[in-house]
Amino acid sequence: MTDQEKADKIVYKLMYPLDAFSQWMQIDIIKVSPGACEIKAEIRSDMLNGFNVCHGGVTFSLADSAFAFASNSRGVQALSIETSISHSRPVLSGDIITASARELNLSSRLAIYDVVLTNQNNESVAFFKGTVFRTGKQWEV
Amino acid sequence: MTDQEKADKIVYKLMYPLDAFSQWMQIDIIKVSPGACEIKAEIRSDMLNGFNVCHGGVTFSLADSAFAFASNSRGVQALSIETSISHSRPVLSGDIITASARELNLSSRLAIYDVVLTNQNNESVAFFKGTVFRTGKQWEV
Amino acid sequence: MTDQEKADKIVYKLMYPLDAFSQWMQIDIIKVSPGACEIKAEIRSDMLNGFNVCHGGVTFSLADSAFAFASNSRGVQALSIETSISHSRPVLSGDIITASARELNLSSRLAIYDVVLTNQNNESVAFFKGTVFRTGKQWEV
Amino acid sequence: MTDQEKADKIVYKLMYPLDAFSQWMQIDIIKVSPGACEIKAEIRSDMLNGFNVCHGGVTFSLADSAFAFASNSRGVQALSIETSISHSRPVLSGDIITASARELNLSSRLAIYDVVLTNQNNESVAFFKGTVFRTGKQWEV
Repeated sequence: MTDQEKADKIVYKLMYPLDAFSQWMQIDIIKVSPGACEIKAEIRSDMLNGFNVCHGGVTFSLADSAFAFASNSRGVQALSIETSISHSRPVLSGDIITASARELNLSSRLAIYDVVLTNQNNESVAFFKGTVFRTGKQWEV
Repeated sequence: MTDQEKADKIVYKLMYPLDAFSQWMQIDIIKVSPGACEIKAEIRSDMLNGFNVCHGGVTFSLADSAFAFASNSRGVQALSIETSISHSRPVLSGDIITASARELNLSSRLAIYDVVLTNQNNESVAFFKGTVFRTGKQWEV
Repeated sequence: MTDQEKADKIVYKLMYPLDAFSQWMQIDIIKVSPGACEIKAEIRSDMLNGFNVCHGGVTFSLADSAFAFASNSRGVQALSIETSISHSRPVLSGDIITASARELNLSSRLAIYDVVLTNQNNESVAFFKGTVFRTGKQWEV
Repeated sequence: MTDQEKADKIVYKLMYPLDAFSQWMQIDIIKVSPGACEIKAEIRSDMLNGFNVCHGGVTFSLADSAFAFASNSRGVQALSIETSISHSRPVLSGDIITASARELNLSSRLAIYDVVLTNQNNESVAFFKGTVFRTGKQWEV
């Protein structure tokens, strides 16, 4: 099994089908590669807050799912330690948000990722950075 | 109208009833005061991720709602600029999570909050910190 | 040796005397206990930036030293993974800044701290949060 | 005066010569453009901590200076609100660290930057993200 096949199996077969909240968000996995992942989802009216814009937790959740898929795709189970997000533009109902996670650093126990979120006009709406602890436990692929 | 009455009206009447995603989380507002807010919610099976623990985005969202209520309760509309969360303990289905937001600093344009998340055993599960931009626009109470 | 004696020995004998940059800042260690540390320093003219206020890196460094002392005082060598700081008030030359680090969470591999920075008027000037990786290597006390 | 000339004047003439702490770090400004800045410095023995590696506050300070130069180079005075840094590799005495700041987002009141820090072997040593509040006050160029 190649690294790419392993990454695909972990994300498409072992993680996403069991990830109830990512399914609630109806995320669409665009692509996966070892250490990276791109997903998208449409913002629905049940994802809005009292300002009638997308709840910050939903934008964060999209980034967090891309981050989880990217960091686990290497084959070792990885748990989020610390994450942050900066919002740059309001997200509205009907927007199609893409979250693209990229590996900044990989070591045996820790790894760092950033995730850029963009809307359907290719405008950035948020910037996320996160660190995982790599438990050492292998995904059984 | 006292500051307390204003805080109550903003959160209970103007924000929460229009906040579809907070309602999806079925959050229960325990108390509000100017600059502070405590909420709780039960973690349901549709909030879990592929590890069968609560999706990090849901824990974040609870903190983010408490943060939004606390920062808007002063009477000026406040938008999240930057937030971060550190996870300290897994959150499981059936856990009752309390998010308690506290104002660390308030100035005319910016304010800083932290939110501690605890479970039903009073164990901390996550620590959140956030900064808002205060737009200057008043809530019409 | 008690936990308190161990914490004192690590910070006062093994860390601070070898910490050249903390010495450049002329930090004064007020107190240490297992998982906590309070230090202070006076802001000098060579710590200022082009706005004639304290460089943000110096305020951060005070917090980071308190964080390092607190997290190592337990007896296990701890390395900073991720830290953040929010500034709430300008720091001026001649200000006496106290950095007080507190343990929010301790587990076998990871621990979380916050550090509050206050000036001589007991006004908060910055809020810091940090996570360490506990290497497993013991301090030889 | 072009935007590039303005950026150069702000950083080289108005900020750096008055920035005592950046001078203590002996930073070398490699290039400036509107919204971006690259600087470097050599790590000296007086920048180390008790582990005999570069104090995290010094690495942060290099990033923070690049961030301050980049965010002010647009012509409007900008103050740091919130910053975070993730360390990926130890920095040693004698290392030459480059900090490269890039603008992720610019709006009238707020702007977001990231800064990547690399050593002389082009290995990344830390990842920084920061947000500024743009005060509206112009630099007098």
